[in-house]
Amino acid sequence: MREQVKRFAEGILYTDQYQLTMAQLYFRMGLHEKKAQFDYFFRSYPDYGSHSAGYCINAGLEWLMDWMAESRFGPAECEALRSQRSTSGKPVFAEDFLSWLCEYGNFESITLLAVPEGRVVHPNTPIGVVTGSLAMAQIMETALLNLMTYQTLIATKAARIRQSCQNQLLLEFGLRRAQERAAIAGTRAALIGGANFSSNVGTSHALGFAPKGTHAHSMVQVFLSMGGTELDAFRAYADLYPDGCILLVDTINTLESGVPNAIRVFEELKSKGHKPGGIRLDSGDLAFLAIHAAKQLNDAGFADVQIVLSNNLDELAIWQITTQIQQEAPRYGVSPEALIGRLSYGVGTGLITSRGDSALDGVYKLVALEEDGEWVPAMKISETPSKTLNPGNKRLWRVYDQRGHATADLIASHDEEVAGYDPLVLRHPSLVTMQRCLAKSEISAIEPLLEEAVIQGRQMIRPQEMEEMRARRREDLLKLDPGVRRMVNPHIYHVSLTQKLWDLKQNLIHQYKQD
Amino acid sequence: MREQVKRFAEGILYTDQYQLTMAQLYFRMGLHEKKAQFDYFFRSYPDYGSHSAGYCINAGLEWLMDWMAESRFGPAECEALRSQRSTSGKPVFAEDFLSWLCEYGNFESITLLAVPEGRVVHPNTPIGVVTGSLAMAQIMETALLNLMTYQTLIATKAARIRQSCQNQLLLEFGLRRAQERAAIAGTRAALIGGANFSSNVGTSHALGFAPKGTHAHSMVQVFLSMGGTELDAFRAYADLYPDGCILLVDTINTLESGVPNAIRVFEELKSKGHKPGGIRLDSGDLAFLAIHAAKQLNDAGFADVQIVLSNNLDELAIWQITTQIQQEAPRYGVSPEALIGRLSYGVGTGLITSRGDSALDGVYKLVALEEDGEWVPAMKISETPSKTLNPGNKRLWRVYDQRGHATADLIASHDEEVAGYDPLVLRHPSLVTMQRCLAKSEISAIEPLLEEAVIQGRQMIRPQEMEEMRARRREDLLKLDPGVRRMVNPHIYHVSLTQKLWDLKQNLIHQYKQD
Repeated sequence: MREQVKRFAEGILYTDQYQLTMAQLYFRMGLHEKKAQFDYFFRSYPDYGSHSAGYCINAGLEWLMDWMAESRFGPAECEALRSQRSTSGKPVFAEDFLSWLCEYGNFESITLLAVPEGRVVHPNTPIGVVTGSLAMAQIMETALLNLMTYQTLIATKAARIRQSCQNQLLLEFGLRRAQERAAIAGTRAALIGGANFSSNVGTSHALGFAPKGTHAHSMVQVFLSMGGTELDAFRAYADLYPDGCILLVDTINTLESGVPNAIRVFEELKSKGHKPGGIRLDSGDLAFLAIHAAKQLNDAGFADVQIVLSNNLDELAIWQITTQIQQEAPRYGVSPEALIGRLSYGVGTGLITSRGDSALDGVYKLVALEEDGEWVPAMKISETPSKTLNPGNKRLWRVYDQRGHATADLIASHDEEVAGYDPLVLRHPSLVTMQRCLAKSEISAIEPLLEEAVIQGRQMIRPQEMEEMRARRREDLLKLDPGVRRMVNPHIYHVSLTQKLWDLKQNLIHQYKQD
Repeated sequence: MREQVKRFAEGILYTDQYQLTMAQLYFRMGLHEKKAQFDYFFRSYPDYGSHSAGYCINAGLEWLMDWMAESRFGPAECEALRSQRSTSGKPVFAEDFLSWLCEYGNFESITLLAVPEGRVVHPNTPIGVVTGSLAMAQIMETALLNLMTYQTLIATKAARIRQSCQNQLLLEFGLRRAQERAAIAGTRAALIGGANFSSNVGTSHALGFAPKGTHAHSMVQVFLSMGGTELDAFRAYADLYPDGCILLVDTINTLESGVPNAIRVFEELKSKGHKPGGIRLDSGDLAFLAIHAAKQLNDAGFADVQIVLSNNLDELAIWQITTQIQQEAPRYGVSPEALIGRLSYGVGTGLITSRGDSALDGVYKLVALEEDGEWVPAMKISETPSKTLNPGNKRLWRVYDQRGHATADLIASHDEEVAGYDPLVLRHPSLVTMQRCLAKSEISAIEPLLEEAVIQGRQMIRPQEMEEMRARRREDLLKLDPGVRRMVNPHIYHVSLTQKLWDLKQNLIHQYKQD
């Protein structure tokens, strides 16, 4: 059953019913092949309750492009739609529409401009601009949002946890608690966002990463149940994995049993010429235990082995642990810097499910329709001014100040020479009194953020290497003001409109209110 | 790339690296085919922050069984493992182990007792009991937790939202904001837990449900952009879908434009002999707008059409809306009962991602090992007494009081005749002073909850019909004390041990502490 559901549910029918009923309406009215443009953006940064993000890391694009290339209406899909009945028992979808779908129901008409993966992105900016036939561009909405928002959510969380970890190793351990098969995309997004490795074997292999892990409590339990000891368990494990061996020390008692036993095994390994890996702490007060474990390890001459921390970690928990270590370690004769410098972090649920905010509020809005070869901006006015659409065919730019810091993301009409403005006027998207003027001399660079990802169904950008995406994320984060990167109560990054786009938007609002 | 990752990542390597390194250790020690038993349970009910669950709805079992049947180590998987290298450059996995995996690396040795899907379940009770070779039972951990916990999380959330909706229609609208492909399992779980239908086309079809939907704002926008009106859009849509037509009325202004236009179209439909479906409200103060829209519809003679509410709903939001309607509707001459009785609810993100608590804290613990044909209980002691394992080969029973209410879930040794006790002693799992005694006369029934799902790799239970699972959920919920079903601050349901299991546990704790 599961296989059958999967095959069917992941293709072109990975969409909402109303996309199909609307597509049929457009077909009936002869509008289905009219050129339309939709923007993909998200409305707000993830808000985790006690803390919130001041930036997001874009991810998911490659897998969206792959889905577009693989997904099309075929006989099975049309047959499924043919079986649908309205409340009066009549077919919901007519044969002529189904024939059209079977022939043209693919994404070969679609052009997609998109911000590359790994880049910092901000709310209410067009991260994806979809152009194509009204029917197919509409049908694409659901999958685009599904595939893009989750990976962006997780890459963002990973980048925040990476910040807390500073330069230490971050391991993604979330497969078991992930929202089912989201684990696969989630592992990829975590690696883009800042995890070094993952425990997820299949996904790691497929992405070219070595999967990582230690051992579980159950291994020690097996030895105990058979009349053996924790030391027996450690010895057996170290015997099989003598290089870089990491031992989980909290099955019985961390400081009285686990760490002393690990030290004995490390001494044995060392005498045989192996370099021990370290220990893992998975319960209790991780800061306290790390300090005291470090002290025992230091005293035994293992000042260089890793201490891996796991158990319910996220960016705040890690921040708290390192803060506590900075304050407390000196009291026990342990150098906080040295201790923090030997820590690694295994993060499960908190990362792979984006604990605190389980979804990015991505939306996909009609912004323009082609009439006689010209783009006519589409509008949607909301009683909440910040939700009123930025209309028309647009481009996205990043403006850097004289220090090389990103100072604003600027949304412009597609035909504007943004670099030519002096001064450059940055208008707040909805508040009339909020605007900035930047003289050309105050600007070090203006960078276009949208790339041609798909043109008429053809992928234009090659699959990015993971290392490229990671490098891009690191660079973009460095160019953010530290206040924007702040984990709690971050400074608000500026997202602005050009004067021209502002004028267009105001004119349309005026026009719609008059009608 | 996505296809390649998927194929590889969803099979037997949908697991954590340490499961494989531990399996190799067991192989090396000749323990890999030793019979072992693991319990699957979760530690606590979902806690959504401002509210929490007092029960869970079990789900995911069928898809776990399917995964077990489909997944095995083959040449490709072994090749992937063969390529792994330790820090010293040596292969992590030896050839003899890989040969064994290729031949025996499947779930044909596994027996699984499990609580059926749709049933109410509680924390720290064995919902799944896995028996099989130590190596393969260990490798199964990650996928079991991944596949079971998410569906249980979502079925639970759906059951809570169903409670808020009372008997009204609940539509699952979450595909676009789901955690990527979790949407597929999530849609299934939502249907088990209480959603009537889903907008997810592919999954609905595969599960035998009609996908449901209305239309989007973009449809109205298309008409507006082309110089038309909202009324034109509604007419066109109603013309194509005259039966049960539902119109989204908040693109321009709900009460001044959307509802009056919908009424005009409904009148036209009626005159042509069609029965209009209703309206959908997707923004603003949904309670206020529902009351005033109902008033307009009533005055126009459409007191029977549906009002579908959507936009950021969950169990609390719906509860708030119905409470507000009860208080405010009479002031406007609208019957609150009649209005609530015509509402339907479209719930997206809040349901499909279990907003507020994005993961169920499922665990999988070694509880027994076979020695000379006897089960020897395995133990794990925690400094937190509630986390100390309930050891041994166990069974799970539900005890009903004289009113037919479930009064406790009782964990017993596998060889106990629980029905024979008079009185039946219910011991708290960790607190020595907390116990109840029930005379036989106070008990109306004692029901076993675990069924034989898989025996030696063979599925013993046929795939359950969705309606069976839904009926089971309804029945189980009716048998709960209303306080346990309460949405905020629910009463704690009793999970107990038999005296015999309690004694076993205490003896083991004593024994381990002495060692």
